[in-house]
Amino acid sequence: MDGPLKNLLVVDLTRVLVGPYCTMILSDLGARVIKIEAPEIGDDSRKFGPFIESYSAYFMSLNRGKESIALNLKNADDKKIFNKILSKADVLVENFKPGTLEKWGYGWKEINKKYPKLIYASASGFGQTGPLKELPAYDMVVQGMGGLMSVTGQPNSEPTRVGTSIGDITAGLFTAIGINAALYDRKKTGRGMYIDVSMLDCQIAILENAIARYLSKNEIPKPMGSRHPSIAPFEAFKTKDSHIIIAAGNDKLFEKLCNILDMPELNNDPKFSDNSSRAKHMDDLKKILEDKLKIKETNEWVKTMEKEKNSLWSNI
Amino acid sequence: MDGPLKNLLVVDLTRVLVGPYCTMILSDLGARVIKIEAPEIGDDSRKFGPFIESYSAYFMSLNRGKESIALNLKNADDKKIFNKILSKADVLVENFKPGTLEKWGYGWKEINKKYPKLIYASASGFGQTGPLKELPAYDMVVQGMGGLMSVTGQPNSEPTRVGTSIGDITAGLFTAIGINAALYDRKKTGRGMYIDVSMLDCQIAILENAIARYLSKNEIPKPMGSRHPSIAPFEAFKTKDSHIIIAAGNDKLFEKLCNILDMPELNNDPKFSDNSSRAKHMDDLKKILEDKLKIKETNEWVKTMEKEKNSLWSNI
Repeated sequence: MDGPLKNLLVVDLTRVLVGPYCTMILSDLGARVIKIEAPEIGDDSRKFGPFIESYSAYFMSLNRGKESIALNLKNADDKKIFNKILSKADVLVENFKPGTLEKWGYGWKEINKKYPKLIYASASGFGQTGPLKELPAYDMVVQGMGGLMSVTGQPNSEPTRVGTSIGDITAGLFTAIGINAALYDRKKTGRGMYIDVSMLDCQIAILENAIARYLSKNEIPKPMGSRHPSIAPFEAFKTKDSHIIIAAGNDKLFEKLCNILDMPELNNDPKFSDNSSRAKHMDDLKKILEDKLKIKETNEWVKTMEKEKNSLWSNI
Repeated sequence: MDGPLKNLLVVDLTRVLVGPYCTMILSDLGARVIKIEAPEIGDDSRKFGPFIESYSAYFMSLNRGKESIALNLKNADDKKIFNKILSKADVLVENFKPGTLEKWGYGWKEINKKYPKLIYASASGFGQTGPLKELPAYDMVVQGMGGLMSVTGQPNSEPTRVGTSIGDITAGLFTAIGINAALYDRKKTGRGMYIDVSMLDCQIAILENAIARYLSKNEIPKPMGSRHPSIAPFEAFKTKDSHIIIAAGNDKLFEKLCNILDMPELNNDPKFSDNSSRAKHMDDLKKILEDKLKIKETNEWVKTMEKEKNSLWSNI
């Protein structure tokens, strides 16, 4: 293994998605990861489909590059082996329900006393402190509680989740950031650090304009399909055979779009002359654009627009 | 400022979302961030609503804790000031279209020669190499191209994006991971590193079970509303007044759910006796559960289920 985390040893007490996603990144960055699994049972996700022969492709996709050993942390002999691994480790990552490792004698306080250089990261549904700390969580639960589902979906549609487990994955990414920053810090101080990541916190951290709108205007953001709340045109449009995404993020791009569509008059219409006017008349604009776009198939439109790539797309 | 990145100086050449999100995290971790903005114009997102007085709450939410200076990197006098800042910096972050900084004399090769300790991170739509490198991208474009929109939404609904700019945000998170790992590496080697993050790559990296299903089974995953593709019951259900998310991720949890709903017979029905049977009969199960759930309001159900919190929720 090569990479910036070469020669580091990570003890991986994680299961399912949030923790394994984090340690997968540490492994990708060059660390040696030893995953500790419960004897007989193993990581729950070994039972998640799809399967290749009898192996879970889901499990394998998240645990690539890791070593694995089965240990029962409530058994005295197994604890000896675990302690030996721990004494050589740089990082411990876990996503048990808060309090579980403390009960087994491996809480942060005990660990930090015995191994002051060890970095200890916990990912949980709602953090290690606060009123919800005892509640475990699935991705689906924090997607719902964190507000992401309230802005995802078609207007007035049934509740819609993000199609991947973004609640787990963003928390895994934040945990990886914390661990890497703590490794840097340890080079200066010689001491480990405790990293406490809550999946719900991470959902709040990715709410972007929704949280700005709520806090500054008391507006409760709603799902808008594929539409951007304040930029237009910036959504999926119907074509002859399917859809095309058009994202004209500023006035210059809109002008170019009008020229490509051979509708220069649109750009001169005061209803559409700048972004805030277009945002006010999104529905009208969509109807006009779709009347034009439905005369050709998506592929044809994409080809036409790609010819203009350097001018159609802004340089953000 | 305190935190693991204390005493580090980050030169921030980023605009809009992906780059500013990354440098916001570096600032939150204690680094000093100096944002360089184009004179007169500034970061495009200063014009994005909502506004508090004349200030963009959107811009402020992403640029908290940073300092800002206006410099024109094509102007000789401004370049002198920029070079002075650069000579003291630890990290440079940028999200221009690939090639832009090279044109101005600040590409990775030149910078690395002059400032070998400087870490240089570029976030772009499609990376610094490859056939799409010249195309800039908005979040909406990579959400569409990366496949996330193909698994988000109701079955057969219009195209649905994730309600926040998850394409930008995940790339910002991966860039922050790369920078922190490079800082750790620099403590060992004394040398900087180049970090090349593509928003499209990051979208692929978060596809989770969708990519496992496609690669192992040639299955093309589709949007499923709030439903999990292989676990049941695991979605939003109608109640008397709104919806409730029920995530019974294993057989033990399903048994407890049946008891709480006073429907122990469900658990004995061979159609629902284990997760793979339930997954096969998701629609039947949903109908039966909703017939029961619609007799009470969501709040009442949540209270009933919270009483059982330690048993209803598994400890993942």
